[in-house]
Amino acid sequence: MSLPCLTFHEKLRAAWRSSDSALCVGLDPRLERLPDSCLGSAEPLFTFCREIVDATAGLVCAFKPQVACFSATGAQRELQSLIEYIHHEHRDVPVILDAKRGDIGATAELYAQEAFDFFHADAVTVNPYLGWDAIEPFARRLERGVVILCHTSNADGAWLQEHPPAAPVYLRVADMAARQDQGNLALVVGATFPEQLAAVRTRAGDLPLLVPGIGAQGGDVDAVFANGLAEDGTGLIVNASRSIIFASDGEDWAHAAGQAARALRDDMRRAKANALAQAG
Amino acid sequence: MSLPCLTFHEKLRAAWRSSDSALCVGLDPRLERLPDSCLGSAEPLFTFCREIVDATAGLVCAFKPQVACFSATGAQRELQSLIEYIHHEHRDVPVILDAKRGDIGATAELYAQEAFDFFHADAVTVNPYLGWDAIEPFARRLERGVVILCHTSNADGAWLQEHPPAAPVYLRVADMAARQDQGNLALVVGATFPEQLAAVRTRAGDLPLLVPGIGAQGGDVDAVFANGLAEDGTGLIVNASRSIIFASDGEDWAHAAGQAARALRDDMRRAKANALAQAG
Repeated sequence: MSLPCLTFHEKLRAAWRSSDSALCVGLDPRLERLPDSCLGSAEPLFTFCREIVDATAGLVCAFKPQVACFSATGAQRELQSLIEYIHHEHRDVPVILDAKRGDIGATAELYAQEAFDFFHADAVTVNPYLGWDAIEPFARRLERGVVILCHTSNADGAWLQEHPPAAPVYLRVADMAARQDQGNLALVVGATFPEQLAAVRTRAGDLPLLVPGIGAQGGDVDAVFANGLAEDGTGLIVNASRSIIFASDGEDWAHAAGQAARALRDDMRRAKANALAQAG
Repeated sequence: MSLPCLTFHEKLRAAWRSSDSALCVGLDPRLERLPDSCLGSAEPLFTFCREIVDATAGLVCAFKPQVACFSATGAQRELQSLIEYIHHEHRDVPVILDAKRGDIGATAELYAQEAFDFFHADAVTVNPYLGWDAIEPFARRLERGVVILCHTSNADGAWLQEHPPAAPVYLRVADMAARQDQGNLALVVGATFPEQLAAVRTRAGDLPLLVPGIGAQGGDVDAVFANGLAEDGTGLIVNASRSIIFASDGEDWAHAAGQAARALRDDMRRAKANALAQAG
């Protein structure tokens, strides 16, 4: 396993250019939804995701595997194999490990080791509740990306993240990321909160924004691009998981995932063109 | 592995009674600090911690293994073995998995599965940044404990957790826990912030408080008991990790850990008696 030669932002920008896609496919496999042929494999989660990866790699700017889908049953080695496979077979596509880690000092260093040295991810999602000194052990790895939760897509997130209304936590987090960035930070902002997405874009300059919540969670693609594009027309990593990977429950899962990814990528291209036309 | 017959609060109260100790030993092993005889073992982290556990089990109200110390190198099975060992050999001592997980809906369910069904922990630490709907999938497991980060012990935590001063996030979290508790919630409040500890105790009634930050991090034992005891004189789970488990770097690590744990337990008993005398 060779170390990455590019920084996360560089790898991401190259992936945006070569794919002309803002789509990130979330690799969130669930054992109970896998087709029979995968369940017969010695590594069912890996087998399922590998086929999804091969069917969608040319259509995406990133993959985002969810560590809990593997660690819930002690299947970390399958995730390790999957990320190694992506690096080997689709080396231009960055891998964002969705782990939402957050702990202090020495423990944060261990979580960085887990994400970057054990799983070999290009970037990892982290939780800002413990402040910058809990994020810095990740961010000091300047060749890797750190994607900080800012405004999440779920209904109850606003309870803490929009407190207090006059100076909400999520904008405090956006300001911190803009201030601390050395070319390797990004922010998570849910598609289900388009006004907040616009506010974060204003505060965070051209930082990449990872946007979950379209598809199964109901976020609107047009609103994401109208509110979230950076000035240069890039800046968005728009994640879809279930609507892609479970597009079919049958043995044609990979083909169906490829079709769903292509349709969503094309819809995002249209939404982006509209947003740029309206901005221009 | 049998399921626990008691709830987390019941198991904890029984452990407080039988041990007359508020000490929780944090099991945070670091490969680079293990004595040679452990490094020669096939399961060095497990071997090291097992000896610590046997030397301290009679002196504690809980053990708190740190998942990152194991997952950083893919050694989850050693942590699984360690927790199984504690349940088997020291069945009255609850195990709090320090994982600080936080994610939405279906993913939170997977993390609950990781903590409770894969690792068989009695309780798990979680992060409140995503709000109650990200905690509820843990808390609905009424026979298990959910320990919510409230005010952490590190210097930068206050940046978010005390924002804004008039209605700080950490008290909002304390209020939520008091409101949602069905007999299985607890809160993390760092020993390094004793005034905030008193404020949380006032807001959260008799909820158990897990207090890290004494020992290596500099928190004061007297201040913890003066500010953190519940009305009935219980309520505190005071964690020490490095000052116990690395009391000696040599082959006498377990004996040294036992001595350090005994001294700290006795110091806590003294501090508790003082606090109760002053309150009375």
